[in-house]
Amino acid sequence: MPGPDSTTVADIQLLYGRQSHAIDSGRAAEWAETFTANGVFDSPSYPEPEVGSDQLTAFAQRFFDSAIESNEKRRHVITNIAVDLVSVDELIVDCYLQIMATPRGGDTRLVRFTSVRDRVVRVDDRWRIQHRTVSRDDA
Amino acid sequence: MPGPDSTTVADIQLLYGRQSHAIDSGRAAEWAETFTANGVFDSPSYPEPEVGSDQLTAFAQRFFDSAIESNEKRRHVITNIAVDLVSVDELIVDCYLQIMATPRGGDTRLVRFTSVRDRVVRVDDRWRIQHRTVSRDDA
Amino acid sequence: MPGPDSTTVADIQLLYGRQSHAIDSGRAAEWAETFTANGVFDSPSYPEPEVGSDQLTAFAQRFFDSAIESNEKRRHVITNIAVDLVSVDELIVDCYLQIMATPRGGDTRLVRFTSVRDRVVRVDDRWRIQHRTVSRDDA
Repeated sequence: MPGPDSTTVADIQLLYGRQSHAIDSGRAAEWAETFTANGVFDSPSYPEPEVGSDQLTAFAQRFFDSAIESNEKRRHVITNIAVDLVSVDELIVDCYLQIMATPRGGDTRLVRFTSVRDRVVRVDDRWRIQHRTVSRDDA
Repeated sequence: MPGPDSTTVADIQLLYGRQSHAIDSGRAAEWAETFTANGVFDSPSYPEPEVGSDQLTAFAQRFFDSAIESNEKRRHVITNIAVDLVSVDELIVDCYLQIMATPRGGDTRLVRFTSVRDRVVRVDDRWRIQHRTVSRDDA
Repeated sequence: MPGPDSTTVADIQLLYGRQSHAIDSGRAAEWAETFTANGVFDSPSYPEPEVGSDQLTAFAQRFFDSAIESNEKRRHVITNIAVDLVSVDELIVDCYLQIMATPRGGDTRLVRFTSVRDRVVRVDDRWRIQHRTVSRDDA
């Protein structure tokens, strides 16, 4: 299998760039739409996987509300995006994800360092995440 | 409006990659040239906006000189670039910007976590920043 | 010299994304193959340069083994990739590289902040690093 073309790489980089801004800014539905309608978000930081647009939207909303309640800004910092073609309409994307938090008037701290592995599929000409698995480096 | 094409995404990513190296390495005029001739840099970390190539160059030079005087290296770490088309010659670019500093022989610290929103325009076939607004996460 | 095209930018970003995952996950030979057969890795953090596939593979294996022995995960976080064309088959790539480490059950720390300058060449249609120079910000 050859590598992904430049259009796919650009689309994936924008998808991941935008996705963080969506959840960090409280646009929960927009974040959920970066997944497929039956998409899965599976992270050991939370009790069980979130599945499907409704659960994903609610998860993103809780993440944002919790930051507000804590009077801090929380950010998903994405780096080291690697893209591997599985087929013309399916990718494996690996990246590093750092969760960072800044209280009002205080110093920023790194909450946790995680690795993300996603299965990404093309639906109606748009790449969307079908299954996300998050791994914590402290585990 | 469809998303930006891969050439635009690549150009923007290089623009932002290069821009940080320019200011962090003391190439003040090169940093200023990533803005339009009448470009605006507006950050709450500084008393008032810098406007136009001369003020932008002087600002970048002060940033670098201040790091030298403090005997430390300072870095602009850019992540999570998102690009939205406003028109064929105008973009909105959002990214995260972490300012980091390392004293000689010492540990690196995160000085502050900020978000950047830029209006970027095409001038003579080159993308340049017309207006940058920086927001601090600790504000 | 014009800037690199979007295919080159995409290829370079994937090369650097993948390279970190390879060394951080213990795929030492894959890491070494991101360099040319006679590639050079020159970092002030190590006693002398590593040259050629065998030395590079052994270096990457030691890096990973050392993390295992320390019971921590170590990550190469790459940001701010800048790409300059030297010729159609040769590039200069600059980026920032943060080494981060997370002990099991503990907090992540930034081990060091470095800058990377690479000479990258096209060999059989693949970009590979011919010479890497790492600079430490604390030096």
